[in-house]
Amino acid sequence: MRRRRFWGWGYEDHVVSPESLAFADASLAALLGGPLSRATPPEVGDVALRSPRVDVPESLARLIGRSAEDRLSHAMGKSFRDIARAVRREFPHPPDLVARPETEADVVDLLDYASRADIAVIPYGGGSSVAGGVEPEVGDTYRGTMSLDLEKLRRVLEVDPISQAARIEAGALGPDLEAQLRPSGLTLRHFPQSFEMSSLGGWIATRAAGHFATLATHIDERVESLRVVTPRGVVATRRLPGSGAGPSPDRLFIGSEGSLGIITEAWVRLVPRPVHRASATVRFDSFAAGLDALRMLSQSDLYPTNCRLLDPTEVIVSGAGSGENALLLLAFESADHALGPWITRAVECARQAGGRVPDEKIRISSEQGGARDETADGYKTAFLNAPYLRDEIILRGVFVETYETATTWNRLSSLDAAVRDAVARCVSGPHVLGCRVTHAYADGCAPYYTLLCRAHPTDPEGQWREVKAAITDAIIGAGGTSTHHHAIGRDVMPQYVREAPDLFREALASVKRTLDPRSVMNPGVLVAPPR
Amino acid sequence: MRRRRFWGWGYEDHVVSPESLAFADASLAALLGGPLSRATPPEVGDVALRSPRVDVPESLARLIGRSAEDRLSHAMGKSFRDIARAVRREFPHPPDLVARPETEADVVDLLDYASRADIAVIPYGGGSSVAGGVEPEVGDTYRGTMSLDLEKLRRVLEVDPISQAARIEAGALGPDLEAQLRPSGLTLRHFPQSFEMSSLGGWIATRAAGHFATLATHIDERVESLRVVTPRGVVATRRLPGSGAGPSPDRLFIGSEGSLGIITEAWVRLVPRPVHRASATVRFDSFAAGLDALRMLSQSDLYPTNCRLLDPTEVIVSGAGSGENALLLLAFESADHALGPWITRAVECARQAGGRVPDEKIRISSEQGGARDETADGYKTAFLNAPYLRDEIILRGVFVETYETATTWNRLSSLDAAVRDAVARCVSGPHVLGCRVTHAYADGCAPYYTLLCRAHPTDPEGQWREVKAAITDAIIGAGGTSTHHHAIGRDVMPQYVREAPDLFREALASVKRTLDPRSVMNPGVLVAPPR
Repeated sequence: MRRRRFWGWGYEDHVVSPESLAFADASLAALLGGPLSRATPPEVGDVALRSPRVDVPESLARLIGRSAEDRLSHAMGKSFRDIARAVRREFPHPPDLVARPETEADVVDLLDYASRADIAVIPYGGGSSVAGGVEPEVGDTYRGTMSLDLEKLRRVLEVDPISQAARIEAGALGPDLEAQLRPSGLTLRHFPQSFEMSSLGGWIATRAAGHFATLATHIDERVESLRVVTPRGVVATRRLPGSGAGPSPDRLFIGSEGSLGIITEAWVRLVPRPVHRASATVRFDSFAAGLDALRMLSQSDLYPTNCRLLDPTEVIVSGAGSGENALLLLAFESADHALGPWITRAVECARQAGGRVPDEKIRISSEQGGARDETADGYKTAFLNAPYLRDEIILRGVFVETYETATTWNRLSSLDAAVRDAVARCVSGPHVLGCRVTHAYADGCAPYYTLLCRAHPTDPEGQWREVKAAITDAIIGAGGTSTHHHAIGRDVMPQYVREAPDLFREALASVKRTLDPRSVMNPGVLVAPPR
Repeated sequence: MRRRRFWGWGYEDHVVSPESLAFADASLAALLGGPLSRATPPEVGDVALRSPRVDVPESLARLIGRSAEDRLSHAMGKSFRDIARAVRREFPHPPDLVARPETEADVVDLLDYASRADIAVIPYGGGSSVAGGVEPEVGDTYRGTMSLDLEKLRRVLEVDPISQAARIEAGALGPDLEAQLRPSGLTLRHFPQSFEMSSLGGWIATRAAGHFATLATHIDERVESLRVVTPRGVVATRRLPGSGAGPSPDRLFIGSEGSLGIITEAWVRLVPRPVHRASATVRFDSFAAGLDALRMLSQSDLYPTNCRLLDPTEVIVSGAGSGENALLLLAFESADHALGPWITRAVECARQAGGRVPDEKIRISSEQGGARDETADGYKTAFLNAPYLRDEIILRGVFVETYETATTWNRLSSLDAAVRDAVARCVSGPHVLGCRVTHAYADGCAPYYTLLCRAHPTDPEGQWREVKAAITDAIIGAGGTSTHHHAIGRDVMPQYVREAPDLFREALASVKRTLDPRSVMNPGVLVAPPR
């Protein structure tokens, strides 16, 4: 059993390559000025921890952890704010208890007990929240807090090869889930950047976005049915490919972020492992030209699996190149048919918008492990290792955070200007602001910003709050959404309140009162707590 | 202004062609035995109507109709039960008032008044409900009933050509909406069988399914944002191509069937008018072989615009052929690219499952009005005229009704057997049961049954109830949904209660209490009335 790092991303045994570190050090020194010194990562013993305020009955004790490491590792998520606090040995809201249910019945018993004992329950999947979704920051009115970690509910229970779907427990993390599916030849292919440390239930609860840049961008589209344990009992929806029977029950729980109950399992739609691939990396003189291509592609009915656009700064930041150009990473995949006509037409669209890619660099393969696109492959590896490198960068006193949204095409340039303006207003000194577009729709897209600057030497959390508020307010003011796929958590509630219609939020609060009458489920997330 | 038929489908001036009638008469005589005599359609004066029980204040009087024709034409929908009752001059639940708001402010005022005056409000778009959704059958506890007809809110207000979206008032009927969009070169391409007499708001409120057999099967996927007037006020959602900000507000109102409020307008996603087309009609020896092909296609990532499968009986009933084979109507369309590779691979899939189509019958065109597929075109014309012909058939004493659902592929054959068994149990004498599959998903499909038999001479409504209950119960028992796209209305409530999880229905009831505290919005639909 690999040990997870209690204070930062991933597994303790993961080592960031010396080359990556050297590249990061050199780049950061060049971009932000001067050499950077590395702080010492925290040890469990460094942190002062109050004793747990509550206990559980004997019958539940077998499910409960209360060690310092258990509690610290469930004390917060993985945003810059979280890592920066951990580096400063600040863990202000450790849960009193860490529960690890082994069955759905255990979850029912735990919620039942928590409701009766007035203990706030914070659902915990892989702990990768960058929105304050897993931090037991619930005020002082509860008797205690319980982080409910689903790691033991991790099995693929059933595969239906005819319908290409599987019933999977919510606690399965990405790699484990895919490993269990492998013998079936089917795959979920949901690859968010948090893939290694995020769970199916977490994806569904937060409307995570993954691998697919078009069509099934969010996990929402992959959910065939759900089981959710609420404090009032279990909600089980019906496996259906589609329905018109009233408002979708699934859609009420997809994105509910643990505020209504705990997703324990889901039937999800799978796809056959791809055989055919086609890809190209297209260069553009400007980000604007790349956006034109992206819009053409998203309105073409070609549905590329990947059509990720990086602005020149993001190209540098992600290590994909030296930053003279914007890059469009374009890829198709299929288990059914060769993709020549698809990539050919997609490249035509991109070239029409000024994109450049030599014919010989267009890769088309129809076998497992056929010709690959090195730029895209390098990008993918860097993409999944980025959270580890990010922690090393934070240790070096650098502020690094990401901000994401979605908006319609007609509002994109004003939103982009508003974000850049917000950064200019609240970030002084040298800084880097890169933008990539992660997902594309016929009517708009999802821009994703990375900001790097020197961390405030004494108050990085205050700095984080100020920048977060400035950028997210700008996004909301420009017509975007407070989150395309990172979720609301506790961090974006002020902007969510501006975005979601008042009467809808009242409706959601009434749903919460019905399903969670004692208001113990992830208090403060999505619904303002009644106390 | 064309006059609508108050008792049946469509416009008074529409004439069913003598050829269609002769074909129908001959077919029905052959299938059901003996000659059929035609009843006389009702006249407004034939029907005994009680006086309106309620009035409105002077300020709203300009919006109110109370003529017999107004009230009768809003008294029910267009199911067999409805037409059969109309033919018998039975209009048991005419609204007391017919309101035709001219602005959203009028809708606000009308709901405000209705809430205060305890008048049940029944939203009315095109009146095409076949689920009892527009019939003011609300029990005796309200002071009166108001049918709220949105026909005057029918404008396309704004087109965003960059994002390919438009803001459209909810009362726009299909042909009017498309006519207004035409100058933009964009189209919604939402073509349900009710296209002529159904509205954007009705489609959204009932999760209607349209033209597209894959991908955007339901209008749900086309909704970018909504405005909904509830008795508590207006809910306006944000135009977004995608979001992860909590449970989707739009999805709470999509499918709410007027039980929470009245959709007054929506931004909807459009597509450019198609230029490129490819199609083929594939013959199969059996429906089962056709289903194999359909499943392959739905799991191929090819996303045909149309892949509608008709069983041999349905082929006869729809006039598409003589019924030796099952037929797969396969079509692709695009505004972007020629579709040769798409149709070629799709035909390969179909042939692999035993389908037969000569190469020279595969139509590929890349211009407006290019080569067309006659079988498909004939089918389309017959499809859209079918409701008129259906009324003529009902006048002839024939029971004709449709039943639709969706289920996963692994449950399809047991569901189909359950439906056939239910029909065998409750229909005696000669009858015809055809099945077509209207929409296909990677994990399942939507079968749609047509039943024809002799109508009960004195109690067609009782016959309708018995058959409806038997078939829909069988569908629910076999794991299907109570409706894929006809909605729940009042007719399918017993099965909806079995399908939707109890706690979800409680949650929906709490939403209704929040948005519609006096419970005046379409009482009895989706949420059991509190009185």
